[in-house]
Amino acid sequence: MSSQSLPARSANGSSNGDNKTVRDERIVPPMGMTSHQFNNAATEAIQDITNYYDNISERPVLPSVEPGYLAKLLPQSPPTEAESWDKIRADMESKIMPGMTHWQSPDFMAFFPASSSYPGMMGELWSAALTVPAFNWLCSPAVTELETIVMDWVAQMLALPECFLSKGKGGGVIQGSASEAIVTCMVAARERYVTRTLEKEGIVLTEEQKEDRSAEIRSKLVALATKHTHSSTHKGANIAGTRFRSIDTSLSNAFALQGHELRSTIEKLKAQGLEPYFLTVSLGTTNTCAVDDFASIAEVKRDYPDIWIHVDAAYAGVALVLPEYQHYCKHFSTFDSFDTNMHKWLLTNFDASCLFVQNRCDLTDALSITPAYLRNNFSDQVWFVIRTWGVEGLKAHIKHHLKLSDLFVDLVKGRSDLFGIITPPAFALCVMTVNPTLKQRAPKPSTTEGEPDAENGVPYQDSHIAVIPQQPDSEVLEQANANTKKVYEIVDQSKKVFLTSSLVGDAYAIRVVSANPLASEEGIRKVFGLLVEAAESVLDVRK
Amino acid sequence: MSSQSLPARSANGSSNGDNKTVRDERIVPPMGMTSHQFNNAATEAIQDITNYYDNISERPVLPSVEPGYLAKLLPQSPPTEAESWDKIRADMESKIMPGMTHWQSPDFMAFFPASSSYPGMMGELWSAALTVPAFNWLCSPAVTELETIVMDWVAQMLALPECFLSKGKGGGVIQGSASEAIVTCMVAARERYVTRTLEKEGIVLTEEQKEDRSAEIRSKLVALATKHTHSSTHKGANIAGTRFRSIDTSLSNAFALQGHELRSTIEKLKAQGLEPYFLTVSLGTTNTCAVDDFASIAEVKRDYPDIWIHVDAAYAGVALVLPEYQHYCKHFSTFDSFDTNMHKWLLTNFDASCLFVQNRCDLTDALSITPAYLRNNFSDQVWFVIRTWGVEGLKAHIKHHLKLSDLFVDLVKGRSDLFGIITPPAFALCVMTVNPTLKQRAPKPSTTEGEPDAENGVPYQDSHIAVIPQQPDSEVLEQANANTKKVYEIVDQSKKVFLTSSLVGDAYAIRVVSANPLASEEGIRKVFGLLVEAAESVLDVRK
Repeated sequence: MSSQSLPARSANGSSNGDNKTVRDERIVPPMGMTSHQFNNAATEAIQDITNYYDNISERPVLPSVEPGYLAKLLPQSPPTEAESWDKIRADMESKIMPGMTHWQSPDFMAFFPASSSYPGMMGELWSAALTVPAFNWLCSPAVTELETIVMDWVAQMLALPECFLSKGKGGGVIQGSASEAIVTCMVAARERYVTRTLEKEGIVLTEEQKEDRSAEIRSKLVALATKHTHSSTHKGANIAGTRFRSIDTSLSNAFALQGHELRSTIEKLKAQGLEPYFLTVSLGTTNTCAVDDFASIAEVKRDYPDIWIHVDAAYAGVALVLPEYQHYCKHFSTFDSFDTNMHKWLLTNFDASCLFVQNRCDLTDALSITPAYLRNNFSDQVWFVIRTWGVEGLKAHIKHHLKLSDLFVDLVKGRSDLFGIITPPAFALCVMTVNPTLKQRAPKPSTTEGEPDAENGVPYQDSHIAVIPQQPDSEVLEQANANTKKVYEIVDQSKKVFLTSSLVGDAYAIRVVSANPLASEEGIRKVFGLLVEAAESVLDVRK
Repeated sequence: MSSQSLPARSANGSSNGDNKTVRDERIVPPMGMTSHQFNNAATEAIQDITNYYDNISERPVLPSVEPGYLAKLLPQSPPTEAESWDKIRADMESKIMPGMTHWQSPDFMAFFPASSSYPGMMGELWSAALTVPAFNWLCSPAVTELETIVMDWVAQMLALPECFLSKGKGGGVIQGSASEAIVTCMVAARERYVTRTLEKEGIVLTEEQKEDRSAEIRSKLVALATKHTHSSTHKGANIAGTRFRSIDTSLSNAFALQGHELRSTIEKLKAQGLEPYFLTVSLGTTNTCAVDDFASIAEVKRDYPDIWIHVDAAYAGVALVLPEYQHYCKHFSTFDSFDTNMHKWLLTNFDASCLFVQNRCDLTDALSITPAYLRNNFSDQVWFVIRTWGVEGLKAHIKHHLKLSDLFVDLVKGRSDLFGIITPPAFALCVMTVNPTLKQRAPKPSTTEGEPDAENGVPYQDSHIAVIPQQPDSEVLEQANANTKKVYEIVDQSKKVFLTSSLVGDAYAIRVVSANPLASEEGIRKVFGLLVEAAESVLDVRK
């Protein structure tokens, strides 16, 4: 039945709406529930959520389901009739929970954490309630202005140079992820490079000629990163439709990019008629939390100012709340953009990737910014989190995880008969191997920084034992790799903790990160115990 | 003080972690609040939210603040010490609410709606609680599988052709916005075009030659849309680094794109050595909710199969739940992708833009899909909403808004001394002008569809009076535009309702959309009353 033929309209017939009324034939309340029903349902959900968190360590961190499990439990077609909330609520525990990987469990030490916190949830709840597409100021003055204000707070907390604050030409904007931040910057970098090149050429062109020349310039552009940079830079280059080249880095610098490596890559590409336009440098690589050598890279940037340099500090960047890390910031004023995820290590739920740029116009010029690329409803979360903890509380939060990681590193060092540490432990990440029969002192990154020594300072840049040999095909390495892989698989199959493994250079390594809000000493000792047990069994050693 | 020098560690000194304990010096509970505190805070927030919705019509839909208002109310720097939740809660009402534009108010009839609903909020709450970056199956089997299942539900609800379901090569994926969906498809289309061209050329190339040739092909690509297509296609072309051309459409077809217009544009561009690779067609344009002529466009697509055709149904697409609109779907199997936003008209909170593609590999090949481009935590929301309403409930929801709009259209027609309707009212959108002293029958879109006549069917494809004259510079048009603008400004400045204005062809028009969950007959009569009052005063007419 079309609405055309509804009684209310048929009875009237005329075009005069004055005497017409609209009969409300909706089956379900306009908001899906009455306010009373929502009150009950949400109150129950909050109890379910606090129960979940209070007892999370009793759930196995990894699910035991097989791919396709959920399709067997749910109808293949949408329900015709409305279902009650009670039925939906019950399905959360019976159907969804069995398929969950519990990222907030203290036994989750894989990848990097994805924080959730109670103030974060409050922020999500309010942002859902006040849902606004803030695509211009009038669409929501509060949301638009709050983003600017809290991003300035974040910049100050992390001691970023003033050029990244909104009072000048710079400023911050919340993105969905560090990968999105990178693509956004790459597109801005690409167009800035094209514009600057056209300006330098200084030829008066028709619109059509300009379009042709721009397309030609774009076709020569190359984005740069190292093999240890997160893959989002390579993928971003694909999205931006440009070329990509990987810069080789060296084991002797623990794979941290050095200025001279960048310079020789640029020179080589230019000699081939290609134009490097973008580089991602890392504060904390995915594999090992390595930090590129900002000082020497900044020197190269001075000679090639048109290359956009982006600092990807996705995970580790929030550690800049601690003064002992803030020496890294001094070179950032030479770089174009900086991004860190509060939703990884800083207690904020998805999505709160904080992107700061020196020049807002670079983004707006290239992207003609639309709702999709610069909008968010997540400022209230960031606001709630910073206020609930205060800067001192956030420092204590980060320090706590560093101390937990210190403990783990000490435990590992205490069993050097079983384990080796493969790169300098950093930012609550320990990268370890089993049975390092080939022991050698690991190289220390040769940065140009005057780094504090172990007594005064940086918690993890400690001396350590590594297994990466100079000849990657050595038998010793092969044996170590086989042992490490076996130990990883035993621990993984136990489903008692969730760790990830990784290839660092040619070494198979186990990554242990302990930086989620509920990480605990008990959890650290548990994972260490599991690793010892597995290693003893693989190496056939009893202590 | 660095963690290195903390008592726990200093006391021990050795590398042996066995005897060491980590002192917890955190100031704030690990999750920001205890479970008990969260229970209280969230329970209060839920009361605040239900109060907000119960009394939303008493708040002015638009705020009265001046730009920069919030910076005056908040500290410029982040707080050093933790703040209590009570203080934060109070700021929501005292500082945030005064700067809110209330998108859920029944007086909000601007742009298109951005839905919020109670089940949507439940979804947000749960997705925040179970925050997971589902970048592969193991990271969250439940979230990954739920997305596939609910997207198949959505495809069935909207009667999309089977090729868009996951059981074959197609499937759906939730994106943040319709604009993001367009960029995603454009990048996939660009790379597919490059790959197919290389295949057709069939020359054996080195990797380097292939890279060069690919860059050359990309530099010739052109994306297409009409002037009435949402600007995200033009912006998307900028992001994808390709050219863009606008196809001219004609008033006599109410600006709906026709196949012959597309064909002649393609032929013209090919003659210039350029390669059209992407076209967005609209089911419901932003300005007037016009629908492009899918039948004749599908015929052109058969001759140019390498051009990716994307159906942007951002707002109106969800009306396909009603059988009377499903005749549009029959051509979609010729097109490559379809996107509609459940967060606009279908009761789901941000972000639930539902993108369906015929060939999932097109996306994965081009984008090497990463967390950032194919991940979401919003499936549970979509699941909650569909179950709470059921398909019948969703139909009744859409029909209710169509009936409200019918009423509005009837009211407008009843005062043809004051108002004209400028394009066929469609999908609960009425586009109107003031004082149409030049009256003429509006053109009906000349689709090749056998459209149901007024008696049997489509509610809004009704005959109507328009003011767009054939000579755009006519004095009559100028006068009508000036009057319409005055009326719009009077109503806008009253801040009693929020409408948007628009240029349709050369006519200044007022858009009235009434499709948010709390839209009501009372609200319709109120906005009509305000428009009459303003028009009478501007035209100096008394009824």
